[in-house]
This record gives sequence, C-alpha cells and structure tokens, in this order.
Amino acid sequence: MGHGGGGQLSAELVQHVFAPAFGGEVLADLADSAAVTLGGARLAFSTDSFVVRPLFFPGGSIGDLAVNGTVNDLAMSGAAAAFLSCAFILEEGVELSCVARVAEALGAAARTAGVQIATGDTKVVESGHGDGVYINTAGIGLIPDGVDIRPQRARPGDVVIVSGDIGVHGVAVMSVREGLEFGVRIESDCAALGGLVATMLAVTPDVHVLRDPTRGGLAAALGEIAAAAGVGVAITERDVPVPDEVANACAVLGLDPMYVANEGKLVAFVPPEHADAVLDAMRAHPLGARAAVIGECVAEHPGMVVARTGLGGTRVVDLPLGEQLPRIC
Amino acid sequence: MGHGGGGQLSAELVQHVFAPAFGGEVLADLADSAAVTLGGARLAFSTDSFVVRPLFFPGGSIGDLAVNGTVNDLAMSGAAAAFLSCAFILEEGVELSCVARVAEALGAAARTAGVQIATGDTKVVESGHGDGVYINTAGIGLIPDGVDIRPQRARPGDVVIVSGDIGVHGVAVMSVREGLEFGVRIESDCAALGGLVATMLAVTPDVHVLRDPTRGGLAAALGEIAAAAGVGVAITERDVPVPDEVANACAVLGLDPMYVANEGKLVAFVPPEHADAVLDAMRAHPLGARAAVIGECVAEHPGMVVARTGLGGTRVVDLPLGEQLPRIC
Repeated sequence: MGHGGGGQLSAELVQHVFAPAFGGEVLADLADSAAVTLGGARLAFSTDSFVVRPLFFPGGSIGDLAVNGTVNDLAMSGAAAAFLSCAFILEEGVELSCVARVAEALGAAARTAGVQIATGDTKVVESGHGDGVYINTAGIGLIPDGVDIRPQRARPGDVVIVSGDIGVHGVAVMSVREGLEFGVRIESDCAALGGLVATMLAVTPDVHVLRDPTRGGLAAALGEIAAAAGVGVAITERDVPVPDEVANACAVLGLDPMYVANEGKLVAFVPPEHADAVLDAMRAHPLGARAAVIGECVAEHPGMVVARTGLGGTRVVDLPLGEQLPRIC
Repeated sequence: MGHGGGGQLSAELVQHVFAPAFGGEVLADLADSAAVTLGGARLAFSTDSFVVRPLFFPGGSIGDLAVNGTVNDLAMSGAAAAFLSCAFILEEGVELSCVARVAEALGAAARTAGVQIATGDTKVVESGHGDGVYINTAGIGLIPDGVDIRPQRARPGDVVIVSGDIGVHGVAVMSVREGLEFGVRIESDCAALGGLVATMLAVTPDVHVLRDPTRGGLAAALGEIAAAAGVGVAITERDVPVPDEVANACAVLGLDPMYVANEGKLVAFVPPEHADAVLDAMRAHPLGARAAVIGECVAEHPGMVVARTGLGGTRVVDLPLGEQLPRIC
C-alpha cells in the first residue's frame, strides 16, 4: 500500500522503476504537472487516478475529486485547466444509478472549475475485480507567459504561505470510513484552485513554487520542494492553520495533521518582496480567506524541513514513508 | 460487462449517462480522440484505460497496448502523438518485478512510437480490489494543417480500406487465456500507427475518416461511422483480409472475425480520386503491406453496414450489443 501513498515509497517507485523504463526528462521534473511545448503553445499536462472509498463522503465525492485533483495539478504550474479526459473503470454489477450520480458530480465540478470534459473511455472489469468505480482524469491547460512555477525555483528568503486550513479533506473521508467513524461532522473542503492561483498571479507572475499538499499532506509537499531545490524549509508549527475538529480527530487517531491529505489547499513559495501583496490577494478570494504565512525558505539544512514547535524547540519533519490513510484520493 | 465492450451498450452509457452529465460538445463528437484548440494550437486529445488479462500475451503486453492504444486514437485524427500521461493502479501485493516488466514494455513501446511520457501517477488499492495492474494513458498531439478527419466526413463514393489482417490481436490474447487455449500460436499485431497515417496524409490531407477497429472489431468501427455520417457502408466479405489461423480459431469458438478486437490496424474512408495512391502508399509501409479495399461508402441504407457474402447474398452487419471477448485492451 505504501508505494501508492505519495511518500518515500512512492518516490522510490518512480525513481527506480518508472523513470528508468520511460527515460523521460520531463517526468524527472517531479512537479504535479509537466510543462510541455506543442505547436508553439506552452502547456501544462497532468494525470491522476482516483480510488477513494467511500465514493461519497461529507462535502464531496470521487467525481469532485477527479475534476479538482487534476485541475489543481495544472494550477500548480500556473495553468488554467482547459480540457479534461475522463476514464472510468467500472466493476461489473455496480449500480448504474451510482455511476450516474458520480458522473453528475463530476460534470458539476467541471462546470464550477470552468473546464471542459473533452474525451473519455469506459472499461468494465469482472465482478470481484476492480472496486465499484475507479476514475482517471488527465488535463491540459495553457501556462501564461512569464510564469515559471516549479519546485526547483524555491530560493532562500521565499515566504511559505498556505491557502487555508489543512487536514480537512483527509479527516472528512476518514470520518465516514467503516470502523473509523467518530463523533465529528467534518466536510471535505475539496475545491478547484484555478481561480485562486489566477488571483495570485495577477499580483506577480513571479511566484516561485505552488504545490497542492494531497497525499502525504503538507509534510510531503514541503519535503519534496526542499529536496528538489536543495534548500531548507523552516516552518512554525503554531502558524499552520489546523481546525480544532481536525486536531481533535487526529489526536484520537494518533495522526499528525501535517501528514493528512488535502484537496483544495495549496502551499506557495513567494519572493519576500511580493509576499504581503500575494497574501492579501489570497485572503480576498473565497478559497484563500484563511491563508497564512507558515514559514520561510532557508539556506541551512538543504533538503530538510524543520518545524519550530510550540514549546520553542525544533523537530525535523520527515517525508512520510508510506501513507497514514490509504485511498483518500 | 457489455457496457464496457465498445458496442451498443457502451454507446448507450455514453449517450444516456455521461454526455448529459458532462454536457460537452466535444465529447458528443464520438471520435477516437477529441480535436481541441489551445493557445492557437490544434490538438488531438484522447484517453484509454487498459485492463487486459493476461498482462503478457504472445506478441505484446498491457504496456504495449497502453502506448499504442492512445497513440492510435490520436493518429485517427491525423495527429502524431507527442506526449503521453501514464497512470498505474496497482493491486497491493503485485510483484514489483512484474510492474517493472510492464513499465519496461511501456517505455520501449513509447520509444518505438516516438512519443514522450511526460507525466504519471501511481495508486495502490488493497489486495483483492483491483486486479494486478491497470493502466490509463492520455495523449496529446498536433493535428496537421488542412487535416480534418472525423467519422462525420464519410461521403458516398468514399473507398473503404483496411490496413491489413483483422482479428489477430483479439485471437492472440484469447489464445492464452485460461480455459480458452487452443493449438495455434498467433502473435498480437499490436503496433503504433502514427507513421502509417503520416504516410497516407503525405499522399493527400483529404482523408475523410480513420478509425482503429479495437473493441467491437471492424463491425463496430464501420457501424459507428455509418451512423455518425448518415451514410451506408457496403463491404465485400471475401475482400476483408482474415488470416487462416484467425478464421479457424473463430470457427472453433463460434466467433465472427468482424467483431474481434484489433490494435495496430486501421480502416480508412478515402475519396475515390485518391484511393489508389493512398493504397499504394500504405502497401509500401511495413504496417500496411496487406492493406486492401474492402468496400465503399454508399447513399443507400444510411446508418447501416451491409456485407456481400461469399455466396452472392447480402447480410446486415449489426453493431455488436456487448463484446465477444472481454478485457482484450
């Protein structure tokens, strides 16, 4: 399971199995989406499969995730998603009404995100193989002129900003999973971030890094950026916005909110001279109302994320090995 | 199972469930790939999931199919595939050596097809869910200027050409499936058709329709074209190239080669004034050596495919309802 969790084991699978076999330079970039040039157009191109259980959870569904996950991967290159592909793997015997509900949620999410579903595919596998509904989406979008957002561009001095509360989506999905129910109603904050990113880029095209902290949570996102750019990241734990319900649920379950998946949040590395203006713009957007500075990029401890704890000490924030909670995207 | 078979049930799923939910105009085109414009570039965009069993079969593997299937969908718009996304859904416990073999086959097929794997994703589902390895690929490629290839462009008078022997891939996969082995060694002819299509377009950009007769076979491909363009298609059964081994295997199993899936073959509708030159160009290409004219597009019986049989009679070639053989792509 760990190899799909977005942590170290996932990274090893890509580095040791897929990258050598595929031999791609673009793939080696390790960004959420690839930047490619075709017919003179600079495009972001990304894909994600969705295997979340249950298919419907408070605040969303696999259909919302399938749209927002790929739209957000594109947004992390600064691109507005223009077209999505959508491929279903259905298990024989799944209720058509369930497929229709998922499709309706997916279509509604696409309209909200302003992206068009351009092409699709459906496969059916025998009952007992597959798992009801799996969805893959791939997306393409134009990268605006002058925008060059990649993990490698993190620089010492950059201000690290998150767009809002973390851990909400992961805990929302977990809260309805068989055997893990607990007495809190937390709704997923799953959302498409293209509009928020456009708002930020209107302040300055020189945003250095954007990342949506999905699988592996904020810890994995920061760790990957530190490793890719060869910089250190220093954050202040108490500045990371974690809602009380999420903190309580995590305490009960022995989880660290830093490692819980999100969908609908982003972390940004912004040059210090633009940080205040970008933060103001984010807070003026509905999806960035609770945006906060959580730390900075430093020259010390390259490749490593260090958190100042509430007690005044520091701790190393490791890249998670596997995943705390499987199948939440 | 029938809803994933590429026949009538698949079409109904798209028309009644997905199209209304997604509300896409591009999707309604029903071509193998969508033609979209982005940043001034005219792009073909397509996706396919691959759930074939077994993962390795004579002449190929799920890795080859995952590349060639999407490359060929793009080629059916006249586009040379430039970039692929590649997403794996792995079942917990699948051997990493098996994943590596699949990845190597996939990488090799991409190099042969001249396409770059630009972005990827890996998910792992619990043991007992999923089925070893599922792969989704999506692809983008440039559509050359002056090329407008779509099912709707079929016109009475068009000459119908297939690029070679049909039914080979489907029978090859079936020949190694548990319980269906029979004493023939047939290798899959799975191949990337971008080069063959470029050869044809060098003769004339005015090829009207291209289609790779995958799920549902040649019968479904011709039926869909007839329906999309509101034309009739008349073919001569004995002119359809079917190798003896395929014909024999189909006879034993009670299958019709017209409905068996292919991957690495195409059917073309070409204006009569260009047909001879296009056929000559195809035959000069390794993947078109056994290309043959199998019939023509007619104004009679719109939406219907009619075959002249060996006995001098005619029969209607129906769109298959479901699928003769599940999971061969």
